[in-house]
Amino acid sequence: MVNYPIGDLIAERVRAMGVRPFYKKFDHDGVQGPNMATVYSDQGLGVRAPVVFYNRCNEAAARLRPGDFDWKAITAGGLRWFHSGGIFAALSETTGELIIEGMKAAKRAGAVVSFDLNFREKLWNVWGGQQTAVSVIGRIVENVDVLVGNEEDLQKGLGVKGPEVSGKSKLDTSAFFGMIAEVVAKHPQVKAVATTLREVHSTNRHSWSAVAWIDGQSYTAPTCELDVVDRVGGGDGFAAGLIYGLLAGEAPEQAVRLGWAHGALLTTFPGDTTMASVDQVRALAQGGSARIQR
Amino acid sequence: MVNYPIGDLIAERVRAMGVRPFYKKFDHDGVQGPNMATVYSDQGLGVRAPVVFYNRCNEAAARLRPGDFDWKAITAGGLRWFHSGGIFAALSETTGELIIEGMKAAKRAGAVVSFDLNFREKLWNVWGGQQTAVSVIGRIVENVDVLVGNEEDLQKGLGVKGPEVSGKSKLDTSAFFGMIAEVVAKHPQVKAVATTLREVHSTNRHSWSAVAWIDGQSYTAPTCELDVVDRVGGGDGFAAGLIYGLLAGEAPEQAVRLGWAHGALLTTFPGDTTMASVDQVRALAQGGSARIQR
Amino acid sequence: MVNYPIGDLIAERVRAMGVRPFYKKFDHDGVQGPNMATVYSDQGLGVRAPVVFYNRCNEAAARLRPGDFDWKAITAGGLRWFHSGGIFAALSETTGELIIEGMKAAKRAGAVVSFDLNFREKLWNVWGGQQTAVSVIGRIVENVDVLVGNEEDLQKGLGVKGPEVSGKSKLDTSAFFGMIAEVVAKHPQVKAVATTLREVHSTNRHSWSAVAWIDGQSYTAPTCELDVVDRVGGGDGFAAGLIYGLLAGEAPEQAVRLGWAHGALLTTFPGDTTMASVDQVRALAQGGSARIQR
Amino acid sequence: MVNYPIGDLIAERVRAMGVRPFYKKFDHDGVQGPNMATVYSDQGLGVRAPVVFYNRCNEAAARLRPGDFDWKAITAGGLRWFHSGGIFAALSETTGELIIEGMKAAKRAGAVVSFDLNFREKLWNVWGGQQTAVSVIGRIVENVDVLVGNEEDLQKGLGVKGPEVSGKSKLDTSAFFGMIAEVVAKHPQVKAVATTLREVHSTNRHSWSAVAWIDGQSYTAPTCELDVVDRVGGGDGFAAGLIYGLLAGEAPEQAVRLGWAHGALLTTFPGDTTMASVDQVRALAQGGSARIQR
Amino acid sequence: MVNYPIGDLIAERVRAMGVRPFYKKFDHDGVQGPNMATVYSDQGLGVRAPVVFYNRCNEAAARLRPGDFDWKAITAGGLRWFHSGGIFAALSETTGELIIEGMKAAKRAGAVVSFDLNFREKLWNVWGGQQTAVSVIGRIVENVDVLVGNEEDLQKGLGVKGPEVSGKSKLDTSAFFGMIAEVVAKHPQVKAVATTLREVHSTNRHSWSAVAWIDGQSYTAPTCELDVVDRVGGGDGFAAGLIYGLLAGEAPEQAVRLGWAHGALLTTFPGDTTMASVDQVRALAQGGSARIQR
Amino acid sequence: MVNYPIGDLIAERVRAMGVRPFYKKFDHDGVQGPNMATVYSDQGLGVRAPVVFYNRCNEAAARLRPGDFDWKAITAGGLRWFHSGGIFAALSETTGELIIEGMKAAKRAGAVVSFDLNFREKLWNVWGGQQTAVSVIGRIVENVDVLVGNEEDLQKGLGVKGPEVSGKSKLDTSAFFGMIAEVVAKHPQVKAVATTLREVHSTNRHSWSAVAWIDGQSYTAPTCELDVVDRVGGGDGFAAGLIYGLLAGEAPEQAVRLGWAHGALLTTFPGDTTMASVDQVRALAQGGSARIQR
Repeated sequence: MVNYPIGDLIAERVRAMGVRPFYKKFDHDGVQGPNMATVYSDQGLGVRAPVVFYNRCNEAAARLRPGDFDWKAITAGGLRWFHSGGIFAALSETTGELIIEGMKAAKRAGAVVSFDLNFREKLWNVWGGQQTAVSVIGRIVENVDVLVGNEEDLQKGLGVKGPEVSGKSKLDTSAFFGMIAEVVAKHPQVKAVATTLREVHSTNRHSWSAVAWIDGQSYTAPTCELDVVDRVGGGDGFAAGLIYGLLAGEAPEQAVRLGWAHGALLTTFPGDTTMASVDQVRALAQGGSARIQR
Repeated sequence: MVNYPIGDLIAERVRAMGVRPFYKKFDHDGVQGPNMATVYSDQGLGVRAPVVFYNRCNEAAARLRPGDFDWKAITAGGLRWFHSGGIFAALSETTGELIIEGMKAAKRAGAVVSFDLNFREKLWNVWGGQQTAVSVIGRIVENVDVLVGNEEDLQKGLGVKGPEVSGKSKLDTSAFFGMIAEVVAKHPQVKAVATTLREVHSTNRHSWSAVAWIDGQSYTAPTCELDVVDRVGGGDGFAAGLIYGLLAGEAPEQAVRLGWAHGALLTTFPGDTTMASVDQVRALAQGGSARIQR
Repeated sequence: MVNYPIGDLIAERVRAMGVRPFYKKFDHDGVQGPNMATVYSDQGLGVRAPVVFYNRCNEAAARLRPGDFDWKAITAGGLRWFHSGGIFAALSETTGELIIEGMKAAKRAGAVVSFDLNFREKLWNVWGGQQTAVSVIGRIVENVDVLVGNEEDLQKGLGVKGPEVSGKSKLDTSAFFGMIAEVVAKHPQVKAVATTLREVHSTNRHSWSAVAWIDGQSYTAPTCELDVVDRVGGGDGFAAGLIYGLLAGEAPEQAVRLGWAHGALLTTFPGDTTMASVDQVRALAQGGSARIQR
Repeated sequence: MVNYPIGDLIAERVRAMGVRPFYKKFDHDGVQGPNMATVYSDQGLGVRAPVVFYNRCNEAAARLRPGDFDWKAITAGGLRWFHSGGIFAALSETTGELIIEGMKAAKRAGAVVSFDLNFREKLWNVWGGQQTAVSVIGRIVENVDVLVGNEEDLQKGLGVKGPEVSGKSKLDTSAFFGMIAEVVAKHPQVKAVATTLREVHSTNRHSWSAVAWIDGQSYTAPTCELDVVDRVGGGDGFAAGLIYGLLAGEAPEQAVRLGWAHGALLTTFPGDTTMASVDQVRALAQGGSARIQR
Repeated sequence: MVNYPIGDLIAERVRAMGVRPFYKKFDHDGVQGPNMATVYSDQGLGVRAPVVFYNRCNEAAARLRPGDFDWKAITAGGLRWFHSGGIFAALSETTGELIIEGMKAAKRAGAVVSFDLNFREKLWNVWGGQQTAVSVIGRIVENVDVLVGNEEDLQKGLGVKGPEVSGKSKLDTSAFFGMIAEVVAKHPQVKAVATTLREVHSTNRHSWSAVAWIDGQSYTAPTCELDVVDRVGGGDGFAAGLIYGLLAGEAPEQAVRLGWAHGALLTTFPGDTTMASVDQVRALAQGGSARIQR
Repeated sequence: MVNYPIGDLIAERVRAMGVRPFYKKFDHDGVQGPNMATVYSDQGLGVRAPVVFYNRCNEAAARLRPGDFDWKAITAGGLRWFHSGGIFAALSETTGELIIEGMKAAKRAGAVVSFDLNFREKLWNVWGGQQTAVSVIGRIVENVDVLVGNEEDLQKGLGVKGPEVSGKSKLDTSAFFGMIAEVVAKHPQVKAVATTLREVHSTNRHSWSAVAWIDGQSYTAPTCELDVVDRVGGGDGFAAGLIYGLLAGEAPEQAVRLGWAHGALLTTFPGDTTMASVDQVRALAQGGSARIQR
């Protein structure tokens, strides 16, 4: 976290969301940074696709490295879950190592460890390229219990070869399930792999589903038609809902549905963060309709 | 109407809409009220349902009671129509009685009397419960010529038993027409019963129709697909269009279409009030398309 | 262009779009004008149709007449294309003549000449009526190489008789191609005729295609489903994309697709001007999807 | 009033303000009008002066002429006051005559007649020039009881010669009172002349006062310092407050203060219309401070 | 805190400000409450005074009573300061008692206890009147170390007689200091009394100072000229800054300046809460100018 | 200029302002840049000072270096004036050299060369420090005819020692004129030195003047009181107005007034760019008041 007005703004949002942060503080020189990353997002509309690009130059987060956090203090009160993702891993040569350090500490504290592959070629190309990506992500995934990522993530980020399936619908789950065996063969400690499935009819209309393989069982969420305001964050919303369900002791099927429902609701808000309440998520997961509530 | 800035704001809107008001004035103590009711409404989007809730505490309207209005003066210049509804009836022990008093005065003045059942369980639960609701509404409906309300309204508000129909489409009219006989048996003076029909595909997409039984004849409006901005007020818009049509001497079928068209247009505006012109309503009722007008 | 703040605003927009203007300047008297035309546009929504009307009273543009521009100077650096349209032609008795003067000058400079019929009955009715319209437009089209206009434009603006086709889909291209023969018979120098085709399901949902006859060949763009924000300007966007494609040396089929793609994208922005980049247009023309770009 | 959406908007505002209108209706042709006048106003700020200009081309109001209104019907229920002003008088050759016709009808009905000179050179220059202005205004003022206008209005609009006073403060009242004699000599039926006085330190800071001569007595309102948001309408606010005070039977001094207070409050709102309540005006007139009311 | 969307919104703001809340939860019935209080505030402008009024009907906070909080748990980690005020004391018969209970618990935990008199006649008039106010406030103040309140607060809330001083400037501090003796005589445990002083030139322009009596010494902050956006909250900002200074171990004079500076900065933001950083407050307290920081 | 949406936005603004740009194009990698600089600006209010900070990390402009521009082509059509400033000079080791290269080319083309010292310590500290600053700026100023900068700029940027003047008003011109001798002794080719003078009473209220030494003569603009919305850009506005005046052949005194007027007007707009017309600037320069223009 950087000591300057943009950092204050972000810290306010973190507090508002009820998250207890552990920051390493950086001082901003007023000119060059270090900076909080800026994400520019055009939601698009209809036949006009959304566009996302960054100013991540001299990003404070990229400077984080093993040793920056006192894991013993952080996990002192107990830790149930540790989650990280492929975007943070791609920021610099040190962030992947920090993730691994954190995962090992989390494991020692008895936490479940999850990772959202979120493979972003543009980020890796800045310093490492795809070969580095596969190597770093591979070492991270050795510590992972719950893996989130779509086919492309598994192929590009994990180096898993997908079956040659052509002409299939984008909502067909067979290709995804077909890759699980290979993932588990490579990383036998992985207990769950999950992803969202979407077919994009237009920027504002998607068919939306989700699938998961959990402890050897396959689960598929319903398919629904989404009116999308801003699709960015839908995948994160799925991961958040899935983890919430598993932490809340829900059955795997229900956890997948909670992830699916939360990701769907997230696309109805502008921006990539959630404004959905737990009640809204549960209502949709249990087949809730869009009828008015009064 | 309360003498304070919120009341001034509402009175300005009433004047702007061209409505001649008859107010009982209340003084606000700056702290507790009496207050104008506040309705909080989240329009929702896609799979996210709309939400409506109130602050009706110490509401001025709930204090209205028989004797508050000089009906002789109000009807002195002649009166053609009197309309009230189930939300006002549910506000307190006195509002239902005031409606009955007003309806009797309107009858004396030769007016048609209509009532929109608009059954709201939450409101009745505050002071009376459903049994009181059925009793009060029953006594109101004894004075009614034109009744507006859907199946649920008829069942819960009027205590009419609907036929056991399962698996039917929400736009199927048979269930509604099946209940008319029972309504008319109970309240033989009722000359018309009407309602909107909608199937909610998502918060922003409804299939929309309307049906009416008028003087023994059944009428069904077309079904169209709506892009909905804010569904709240669609039913009121139907009632307003229907009454307008009947007052304007239109044939029953056309009156139903005018109600259907006005309710549909109302859902294309934010808020629960209309901004549609008579020309727009008539154009849609006569099969108007969404082609550009220039 | 009028010397007053509204004129300054428009001139700023013209510069911002990278257009090199040639203005005749008028002084505003602060009260009566001459004025820049005002276009009032309500985008409409769903079953509510868009509405467009004008204040074109004492419009500066209507005062433009042959002799106002120094065509020799304008075309001195070479001229590749000259485009005008039916709205400007309809403004006054002099604007059509100015268009003809300009077209002849453009021809002398070796430019391709195009004209978008854009027939607006309301405008012609102010001073000339339809007979004048057909006569003026006919004389304009004698100078035209590339003609843009739909069936109605061809019939009302050009006096071409369309075949009696009933019950046909609005996206059926046969009627359009059927009229080409008559157009070319009347104006044998015309080398291309093109138009957009749309079927309006609701104000916000159109099926969208485009067709063209170019040097004796027929071309049809794909049909896609549009989520429309503001349909005004879609036709202009098509013409602009088509001309861009032809100027850029694209094959006729690709030029038609570029026009089709640009018109489609233009309807996703508020207002009747474009904010689409060439890259976005090309991506959609080449079958681009609405997938996120990051 | 014109039958088109802009007219509907204005009519809505008129109703909202509680004004009972008497309209002559005009149909708009969708292109040329007749139009409701458009006033463009830049509030300015600090050393940047406000700017106001119009599009009054083919303005419906300018077409109003004697005979357009049924004065007998309008005054049937009694009439206490008739007010018009110099801007409407300047619109065309017929509007001044209509004002005179209306004033005579008002006189017959026993009303007080007032006129706000509001001399606008730009408007008169369009069709008549200053000589016509003086002639028309002179004939109007023959019917006036209460005249509102500053020194410049009296000089340019009424042709009264002001005393040669140099170096005087803009808030000095002697020049104004010095001109009254001449006004009354010319128009002996005039019973009151009033104006606001302001010294403009910057666009947002004025010193504000007002003076009146009523039935031979002179009255001066206090001088206060204004924080101005939008000065346009301050003079109209003064006239409205003064007339209100006189109609309400207030002593002349209090009526002047009410005008002064209302004009001052009006400059604290954007636009040229009032949002001040009678209570706010009375509080300021009685020396109210800007202390918080809770 | 009430379980409904308004409550969620407020809880989000509380978290965002970094405050650790201790809530008693109430369920909302969707209609009558209990409600979070609504404060309506018009900032006013220039000669137009700000206006504040409430809807506090069935307010959840008014239902709080002794026994609702587990003070032992709350103070378990140590407590340095306890602050409450006259608005909460005025809400109901139980809130004053809750304040006393809390103050006694805070004393036991070794905390400094402060109270902002904030006398609001309108609130007391709803249930108790001034006599009750003086009695309740008197019993509260018996537990207070640091008292915040202006002359009017001391007179009306505490029943202290102010000296008869006429014609004095509103920024004259003698009257305030003159009343301290009486306050301390009545409540000898009070160690500090402080208040802001302001002279209101217009809604947007105040002269601003502050004074305090701390442990027998008098302190006066500088007087500065404020450009005020929204004066509501200025007094709370003073109390917050003063308490911060005393908690931070600043000398009394500096603590008074920090309160003065924070209250001044708070009036430059819309709303009644702060967006000033500690750095901004300290800079202004140390004579910081309004020069640009870059 | 960078090829990405932020660059497109800026290029649109450059075109809109009528500036003919000469860009070196950079490609953005979607993540790290090169970026267009971002300036964050809080306008402040009253006692709250404005704040400005940057994200200039990997800024495209800093990569510009001698040889990047084809000066011969740029100056081919003649060049009358060349202006640059201290912020661009401070961006990197190459930008100062580029300025010198450009100035020499401009000189060869017969242009007047000006430089606004605009000394920003924070920028120089990133790579060079003050010693480098003085050395680079000194070498730049060797090519300068017209120098803009205040006392602090002259001292810190040019290393000129100011006279020890204490207790002087910030609008006292003697200190400034006292330093001219030293500047001219060091850089005898300098023909003019100019600066704005302001005394900041609050963020929104400044006293504003300007002084210049031109060809051995001293000129002082009037002092006026400004209501400031956003002070950033006032100095640039002064330079622009001064250069405009000199290019337009105005007398030096009038040129200084034009600069003074333009800088003053610029502070009445949000942002650091101008929306003032030449007419507005001239009117204020000639003693224009803030009276309404209609």
